[in-house]
Amino acid sequence: MEYRKFLSDRLSLFRVSATREAIKLLEKLKLPKLVRFAAGNPGPEIYPYETIAEIAKEVVMQYKASVLLYGSTKGEKGFIESLKSFMYQRGINVRSDDDIIVVTGSQQALYLISTLLVNPGDYIALENPTYLAAINAFKTANPNMIGVPVDEKGMKVEILEEELRKLKNSGKGLKYVYTIPTASNPTGISTTLDRKKYLLELASKYDFLVVEDDPYSYFTYEDTDTTSLKSLDSEGRVIYISTMSKIFAPALRVGWVLANSVLVSQLERIKAVIDLHTPLISQCMSKIAIERGLVHEVVRKAKELYKVKRDAMLKALEENIPGGKWVKPIGGLFVMVWLPEKINTEALLPDALRAGVQYVPGRQFFVDDSGTNTLRLNFSYPPLEDIPYGIEVLGKLIKDKLKN
Amino acid sequence: MEYRKFLSDRLSLFRVSATREAIKLLEKLKLPKLVRFAAGNPGPEIYPYETIAEIAKEVVMQYKASVLLYGSTKGEKGFIESLKSFMYQRGINVRSDDDIIVVTGSQQALYLISTLLVNPGDYIALENPTYLAAINAFKTANPNMIGVPVDEKGMKVEILEEELRKLKNSGKGLKYVYTIPTASNPTGISTTLDRKKYLLELASKYDFLVVEDDPYSYFTYEDTDTTSLKSLDSEGRVIYISTMSKIFAPALRVGWVLANSVLVSQLERIKAVIDLHTPLISQCMSKIAIERGLVHEVVRKAKELYKVKRDAMLKALEENIPGGKWVKPIGGLFVMVWLPEKINTEALLPDALRAGVQYVPGRQFFVDDSGTNTLRLNFSYPPLEDIPYGIEVLGKLIKDKLKN
Repeated sequence: MEYRKFLSDRLSLFRVSATREAIKLLEKLKLPKLVRFAAGNPGPEIYPYETIAEIAKEVVMQYKASVLLYGSTKGEKGFIESLKSFMYQRGINVRSDDDIIVVTGSQQALYLISTLLVNPGDYIALENPTYLAAINAFKTANPNMIGVPVDEKGMKVEILEEELRKLKNSGKGLKYVYTIPTASNPTGISTTLDRKKYLLELASKYDFLVVEDDPYSYFTYEDTDTTSLKSLDSEGRVIYISTMSKIFAPALRVGWVLANSVLVSQLERIKAVIDLHTPLISQCMSKIAIERGLVHEVVRKAKELYKVKRDAMLKALEENIPGGKWVKPIGGLFVMVWLPEKINTEALLPDALRAGVQYVPGRQFFVDDSGTNTLRLNFSYPPLEDIPYGIEVLGKLIKDKLKN
Repeated sequence: MEYRKFLSDRLSLFRVSATREAIKLLEKLKLPKLVRFAAGNPGPEIYPYETIAEIAKEVVMQYKASVLLYGSTKGEKGFIESLKSFMYQRGINVRSDDDIIVVTGSQQALYLISTLLVNPGDYIALENPTYLAAINAFKTANPNMIGVPVDEKGMKVEILEEELRKLKNSGKGLKYVYTIPTASNPTGISTTLDRKKYLLELASKYDFLVVEDDPYSYFTYEDTDTTSLKSLDSEGRVIYISTMSKIFAPALRVGWVLANSVLVSQLERIKAVIDLHTPLISQCMSKIAIERGLVHEVVRKAKELYKVKRDAMLKALEENIPGGKWVKPIGGLFVMVWLPEKINTEALLPDALRAGVQYVPGRQFFVDDSGTNTLRLNFSYPPLEDIPYGIEVLGKLIKDKLKN
């Protein structure tokens, strides 16, 4: 049977992520050993498994039918309460329950937001490079994407302003700017406080929204400003997203969005059709993990461990990657490496996998599909002792390519 | 700030479900007692909570990092294995892992399928009435919906054939038929084996797909044919959906889709962008619940209990609802009631809620927004002793309306 005739045109808007394709390829290779620099997983060493297991049990015994039967689309009330105090401790005052919604991972937030806000051809702006899955989620609504370059102080907001002027002169506007202001994925760069304020001034002047993605501000290893845009937002322009994925466990698929109640109620309307609600066991486990200080403890351990792993990776890069460049990440889970132009990191990946090293080719992080010579390395997941080895293997492959 | 200008046109395709709106209204009313005939929840009496709590704990201790860190979009391998044998026991042979994908509740399957298959203006056909959340999910892709009437033998396939002829004569075709062949929601009707075969013949002749939604065939109370369309499907035309929601726990949000591998890989591509993957704790708990026979046990208890509850509801309807009509449901969780034309069940709902009884107004189950005099009653969730009382309260309200 010919299935192609049944497929919708919209399918083409759902881009296949090379990361997830590589995961599939890997399953087939069945390597004896693999150094996983690809996914943004927490380090498995940080988990007190028995405590988490007890929490899972307790959740069922305590909530009984309330954790097994249908819940509300907006999120479990008790969990929303803990999120509110959790956010408050981080300088964000959630004024009302109407301003918050729980989502099935921050990935869902990104999809909901583009579905809510973007008509085909609308303009949105993003740091370039930025989180590949955000690009993929936004692309499903078929916008025009403006890539704003970054330097070691974060998004170059003055270049955004130029773009805004150009748009305005041609009678157009911007729907939103997407930014990861602290410890960005993939670069590990933070935006300075001055630039954050500048961005919000532009948002007000040119009347656009700001989508602030904040999975990483919990993990900073150097002195850096972690003020959230949301806490500086006096006009309700910021849609703030965070997640349990890095501070607790990604496979629970729990994230949340803080925004004006008008936007939140519309996100809820879309979410109801997509998956009714986020699994309650994930939400209730997250609630208890926050309330008992387990999240605090996990973050504390992770931060300590990831700093050591980051430093090991930076040292190994210095020693092994000829002609490579990177910005020392002040936080987060990743180092972005720029190799000599000659190297195509997508073409290199199958060789790297066969040699037992996995990474994410960088092109997908670029709004304009540039960055073919870049790659993203995760340092939080792999065991510390594997990091120098993995980078050494990678270095040899790169040296070989440069010779030919 | 004016947020309306930011909202996309596509938002209008996401219909607000009156059910979920009613849930919100209810939260505000804070009634001392409410008989819940609305949601399709399992009866909380069926759960062995301690066993489930132990499974939750065991899942974390057994899988450790594998249940906390990112999983694959397609679903957890072990769970897919159990689903395959579970399906096999039910007469469905899943030939390859490539033919199956785990989703975040069957709601997500419905959304993924319409996103995958439907271009705006495409034709799809549905039983009329049918599951309201399926209508809502499909509407997001803006199709033309053909409602096919049902009688006590299920979908009137000969009327579908007429429609297909008309479409063909005007040079058009049908993308798919959506059907709940066993113990349909909202009517509790099953389609006969003859009609199932007739439907598949039409699918072949007129070249369309069949989306078979099967949450309820586990719960039949009378002798009825439960042969799945999937097991009769020799051409790979059937996309089969089922869910853990009724046989285990809806708040885990676990469903699955069986289809040709071409379609499954495209569903996976869409799902990756929407939520990366379904929470692993939900999947692993479902796996163990199937393997240990817990699902079997829950279904056995539920079936026994729901039959008693159904009979209590039918008896109470006979005694209390003047001029009402319904088909005795052979299975599932619902009775659909047709009241005298004069009664608008949406207008009646606020009064019913204030009187302490919740139901779902029927209009939303009709593709053509007819059925303003219908309502759907759930009998699986409310305590047995509340059923006669709830129907009596409802009967009084209806009698009052008929007097005026």
